[in-house]
Amino acid sequence: MPSDIPWRGRTGLPPVNNGVPEHGRVPKYFAVARQVSAMLADLRPGDPVPTERELVEQLGCARETLRRALDELVLAGRLHRTRGRGTTVAEPKLILPLVLRSYTESLADAGMSPQRRPVRGEVIAAGPVLAGKLGIANGDKVVHLERLLIAENEPIGLESTYVSLARFPTILEDFDPTTSLYRTYVTAYGIRLTTGQEIIETVLASPREAQLLGTNPALPMLLMHRDTWDEAGEPVEHVRALWRGDRYAVTTALRG
Amino acid sequence: MPSDIPWRGRTGLPPVNNGVPEHGRVPKYFAVARQVSAMLADLRPGDPVPTERELVEQLGCARETLRRALDELVLAGRLHRTRGRGTTVAEPKLILPLVLRSYTESLADAGMSPQRRPVRGEVIAAGPVLAGKLGIANGDKVVHLERLLIAENEPIGLESTYVSLARFPTILEDFDPTTSLYRTYVTAYGIRLTTGQEIIETVLASPREAQLLGTNPALPMLLMHRDTWDEAGEPVEHVRALWRGDRYAVTTALRG
Repeated sequence: MPSDIPWRGRTGLPPVNNGVPEHGRVPKYFAVARQVSAMLADLRPGDPVPTERELVEQLGCARETLRRALDELVLAGRLHRTRGRGTTVAEPKLILPLVLRSYTESLADAGMSPQRRPVRGEVIAAGPVLAGKLGIANGDKVVHLERLLIAENEPIGLESTYVSLARFPTILEDFDPTTSLYRTYVTAYGIRLTTGQEIIETVLASPREAQLLGTNPALPMLLMHRDTWDEAGEPVEHVRALWRGDRYAVTTALRG
Repeated sequence: MPSDIPWRGRTGLPPVNNGVPEHGRVPKYFAVARQVSAMLADLRPGDPVPTERELVEQLGCARETLRRALDELVLAGRLHRTRGRGTTVAEPKLILPLVLRSYTESLADAGMSPQRRPVRGEVIAAGPVLAGKLGIANGDKVVHLERLLIAENEPIGLESTYVSLARFPTILEDFDPTTSLYRTYVTAYGIRLTTGQEIIETVLASPREAQLLGTNPALPMLLMHRDTWDEAGEPVEHVRALWRGDRYAVTTALRG
């Protein structure tokens, strides 16, 4: 049982308790979402949730309110909607380490069977920002490889890799986009990645991205920007990876 | 100019180009948001955007469509709404390093003047998960300190810190919640944090959190879970920090 203790410096903010403002103005759908979430406590990941009709009867709310509550729980990663299998209790988010490895390898380490599906392979001219990242001149040619990352038969991420065409002149012909690009760096080009930098932010998917990932555009996504360098300190690639925020989280050790 | 090159393994996915599916079914508001975004290219952070009336005239769209487009650009962190100052071009996201320091110190390093505002200080009983994190028994007492993080007069994060009451018996009395907790660990308790672990995910804010942060509940947030340990390897704290996803990103160096 919580026991409140006065705290020096407490301010005139509205009182709050257990996630709900005490003035009681909680949206109805949110209160229903909490009720449904509590009902899921006894179910296991993959279990189907009761039907809309059952939930409406049990909770005594409008069907519209229930639907918004279920949408909220899907966005929160608590429920999972699959074509054909209906709505089920979601697996907990998978937490992937922020390390200098391919995302595919990290997923394989987590016991999944990830696959890559190519979306686009093209040569473009680098703008000033991309040129700076790749250590090439503005306007130099860059290979853009865009691939969907699939796990357990579901799209979970969309990845764009940019490399210098001068450095990887035959990569569009050599590289089988369903395999590991990091392995190809080593085997076909003798390049080993030794350092990297990753920026993590959150965004909403564009309509195109939501279409490719088969998700709701209101679903928050993790957007990762990665730059990597080889043993000589030369930039190798710039990567933009969009991950489903309802299924994935990342983790790192902290240093002082 | 992009020049497409056939890519071995290209599949039967719908064709896509420049972020827009080629079948042309882009929501109207999204197309308008792209137009507005392009118009902002010549403006600087802090500049006011043209009025709704001007934009509606210039773009020839419905006011409702324009509003949805502006909402989208606010959620994307491209526009910023301030009480009193109206809608302005947002600053680029601030990128904070994932390091074993207080968030306040990281913000100060970035040239900001962060402040803390206490929301709640209480003693609660640890559930099994929290007890495990803090190395105490299930049901043992835990101090929960909840504070808003303010920068440039705007709430930007909401942080809950949990520490063992047995280890920090007088922290509710000793600690001035407007100051650095990490400094208090050292000065009042002689505890130095030496290792940490951070998990980063994205969530939508609850109504209470959105109210405290003054944000839209549809705004994707960064949720950070931090555990830290002292020189003896004893757990010190568990922290749950919710950051505005339109204003902040995090970064880390990658190791193999």
